Amino acid sequence: MADTPSIEQLNARLAKSPFNSWLNLAVTKIEEDAIEMTAGWREEWVVNAERGYTHGGILAALVDVVADYAIAAKHGMPVPTVDLRVDFHRAAKGDMRCVGKLVRLGSQFTTAEAYVYDASGALCASGRGTYFTAPPAPPKA
Amino acid sequence: MADTPSIEQLNARLAKSPFNSWLNLAVTKIEEDAIEMTAGWREEWVVNAERGYTHGGILAALVDVVADYAIAAKHGMPVPTVDLRVDFHRAAKGDMRCVGKLVRLGSQFTTAEAYVYDASGALCASGRGTYFTAPPAPPKA
Amino acid sequence: MADTPSIEQLNARLAKSPFNSWLNLAVTKIEEDAIEMTAGWREEWVVNAERGYTHGGILAALVDVVADYAIAAKHGMPVPTVDLRVDFHRAAKGDMRCVGKLVRLGSQFTTAEAYVYDASGALCASGRGTYFTAPPAPPKA
Amino acid sequence: MADTPSIEQLNARLAKSPFNSWLNLAVTKIEEDAIEMTAGWREEWVVNAERGYTHGGILAALVDVVADYAIAAKHGMPVPTVDLRVDFHRAAKGDMRCVGKLVRLGSQFTTAEAYVYDASGALCASGRGTYFTAPPAPPKA
Repeated sequence: MADTPSIEQLNARLAKSPFNSWLNLAVTKIEEDAIEMTAGWREEWVVNAERGYTHGGILAALVDVVADYAIAAKHGMPVPTVDLRVDFHRAAKGDMRCVGKLVRLGSQFTTAEAYVYDASGALCASGRGTYFTAPPAPPKA
Repeated sequence: MADTPSIEQLNARLAKSPFNSWLNLAVTKIEEDAIEMTAGWREEWVVNAERGYTHGGILAALVDVVADYAIAAKHGMPVPTVDLRVDFHRAAKGDMRCVGKLVRLGSQFTTAEAYVYDASGALCASGRGTYFTAPPAPPKA
Repeated sequence: MADTPSIEQLNARLAKSPFNSWLNLAVTKIEEDAIEMTAGWREEWVVNAERGYTHGGILAALVDVVADYAIAAKHGMPVPTVDLRVDFHRAAKGDMRCVGKLVRLGSQFTTAEAYVYDASGALCASGRGTYFTAPPAPPKA
Repeated sequence: MADTPSIEQLNARLAKSPFNSWLNLAVTKIEEDAIEMTAGWREEWVVNAERGYTHGGILAALVDVVADYAIAAKHGMPVPTVDLRVDFHRAAKGDMRCVGKLVRLGSQFTTAEAYVYDASGALCASGRGTYFTAPPAPPKA
């Protein structure tokens, strides 16, 4: 396993990824087995122009990336997602704060989870994924 | 249940949703219990600038929307997603062709699935979700 | 919402359910938004007679019931499972200790999760489900 | 990949597994990328003695095994389940008929799905799992 990366190193990695940049993602805190990230709202996220709610696909993408970056904070880099589950708890608007956690770090597979909150602190979505942490896994931006 | 909508009506609905428009989504075929849609690639979808692969979050969003529009083709309109599972089968590039199908249409919950293919016809991602089809469910764009 | 039940009331409810009795389930602790249960091994659980590992289907059943009883500890009774995700972390043997937690208690849907540990304290499986907590939901044993 | 097994070989493998035997599982048909199995009801399956419904944990176990045996019909033997999703469509009673299908056979992971029907032909549960088909994967009964 590589040295654990710094917040700056993870943010530099996010910046090189076009979609992660488009999501305005930034790592704000790294803790033991957990990471905190923010995602900055943009008008293209909206599912319904009248209500202004964020599309569930954006929330799903956030769960995927944030859980993966909880792994990156341990493993040195994000790894390929094998599969993902997302639960939608309530309609979301605006900037999001996200927390990613390791459920179980394995040599071949890792289960990680993420929680997505709105500015008021309400939990809008959460979920977990299986990530492929085997040594030959190719790096993903 | 409302009258079943036409391809034009579903495309008009997609066009009103900022994120669905950004995904360049279009309905191309409606069949009994199934729908076919296309999604037009854009450079912001890329996860890794060197390789040019599409981000898993985009594929997850496509699974969510396309399964929901399989319901819309029956139910008259898309309905809220309760939860979603996505399996990532292979790296994706370029425009995508998507097929959505009803697994089981229920009065309160509906299970629907979607398959996402690249231009060569390779299956890149697939998944299923639970959608809330109860009468009081608020419409979602 | 009903009065929150006691450990004895939840165990009496488990005892009335043939499959839950067969799993030798017992509630051992109720905490705010969490529950602890035990499941007593039986030889029919084994997937592979040579190795003695417990079948993944048993672990899936434990995740389902224990997450549901985290809801029962709040809601008064278990409610129908809409869907379930289970991650298998390592081969399991013997009696299991399980922890169920609420992820988000909703008026119509509740997301709850469960963790299944072996006697050594190793996490063998975990997962989460969507449960139907709407008022007209019929009781489930 | 091993030679594809016969119905008799798969049933002999099921018979050696205590839990699969307890589920009264039998393979009844093998098709290209699909398998049909039956599961014989037993009174311990019941979740609620008054109503006689089968416990969701049994349905989850059936989805797991039947999807895995769709792989076994191709791959020679069942392989470890990485994770599982199950959707519960309606209350189930009595003997079940199950269909397993490959969604995508991969060198490292395979996605397979299963459908569980009651004697009237109603779909009671369905789901999909990620299975570990990499060469070094240890056999599972």
